[in-house]
Amino acid sequence: MKKSLGAKTLLYPTPVLVVGTYGAGGVANAMTAAWGGIACSKPPCVSISLRAATASHGNLMARRAFTISLPGEENAVEADYFGIASGRDHDKFAETGLTPVRSELVDAPYVDEFSLVLECEVVAVHELGLHTQFIGEIKDVKVDESMLGADGRIDLARLKPILFAMDPGAYYGIGAFIGKAYTIGKTIEAGE
Amino acid sequence: MKKSLGAKTLLYPTPVLVVGTYGAGGVANAMTAAWGGIACSKPPCVSISLRAATASHGNLMARRAFTISLPGEENAVEADYFGIASGRDHDKFAETGLTPVRSELVDAPYVDEFSLVLECEVVAVHELGLHTQFIGEIKDVKVDESMLGADGRIDLARLKPILFAMDPGAYYGIGAFIGKAYTIGKTIEAGE
Repeated sequence: MKKSLGAKTLLYPTPVLVVGTYGAGGVANAMTAAWGGIACSKPPCVSISLRAATASHGNLMARRAFTISLPGEENAVEADYFGIASGRDHDKFAETGLTPVRSELVDAPYVDEFSLVLECEVVAVHELGLHTQFIGEIKDVKVDESMLGADGRIDLARLKPILFAMDPGAYYGIGAFIGKAYTIGKTIEAGE
Repeated sequence: MKKSLGAKTLLYPTPVLVVGTYGAGGVANAMTAAWGGIACSKPPCVSISLRAATASHGNLMARRAFTISLPGEENAVEADYFGIASGRDHDKFAETGLTPVRSELVDAPYVDEFSLVLECEVVAVHELGLHTQFIGEIKDVKVDESMLGADGRIDLARLKPILFAMDPGAYYGIGAFIGKAYTIGKTIEAGE
């Protein structure tokens, strides 16, 4: 029996995206967002939604560029802090001891200590209500070489990305392998 | 040392969203999408990106409504199949044995056997390239009562949502609890 919970933003999982931008004077800022995801394959685009009240929103409007740095489990505390403190009155890089690195491709900084980085240029801005959605074209993805397996591909057991659960407000790790995509479902097709 | 992987849609995790729509003649269709996520808190909105070549894209353009049914681990095979077969030449509900239920709020069906359902009305359509992004206002969320814990909130250990990893193309479960959001990062703020 299904129970109505009302009109709420309940979806599992959401990612933990640390958005890097430059503010006035070139001060590096980082803010954690869970409202976002891949939005298009060609050109490769990611979407992130931010409230207009955030410092990062203003930075994005001015510079039209951002990065996404993906925290691993070992950086969950810093990622949470990036979501609590505002860049308006905090130098979040200095406070966490993490290192902002200027992207060579877009006008934004990324977190050097985080293993996976997307460098993005804003190609569209959509006002949806409380949140503004920024569509970023992914210009490059960079990964720490130590995150690659013997086959040269990303090894999730090393990357250890974090998941956010809006309700009940918690972070989780990635769990057990369930099956190969575009593969396990073929048993149904074959049965027809 | 970071290595460039090129401009690719690499982001972890992405969700496994089974999008329910009605086609011509009211035939229920379900299609799995991983490009999407929450897009706005007020009004509560979700975004999903679909290629124009899919049957679901045409259904969405015509009916301006969809549902998202979230498969649990026990339905990974059906969810994968919903991403392999096309509604143009398959009755995917009949083939999987799953049950389409007409939403009472929007002109779209959901998967009765999946535990969490979002009922959405299309409020914006963005052409991004290969993919069209549909913004859906969430009119209600429904959940199987058996997914709720003693506190009346969603229990992720029961819901067992699936994660999709684009590269290397696999599904994973949710892993261990890492920490409370808006909480674990306060150790940094307090230290300042």
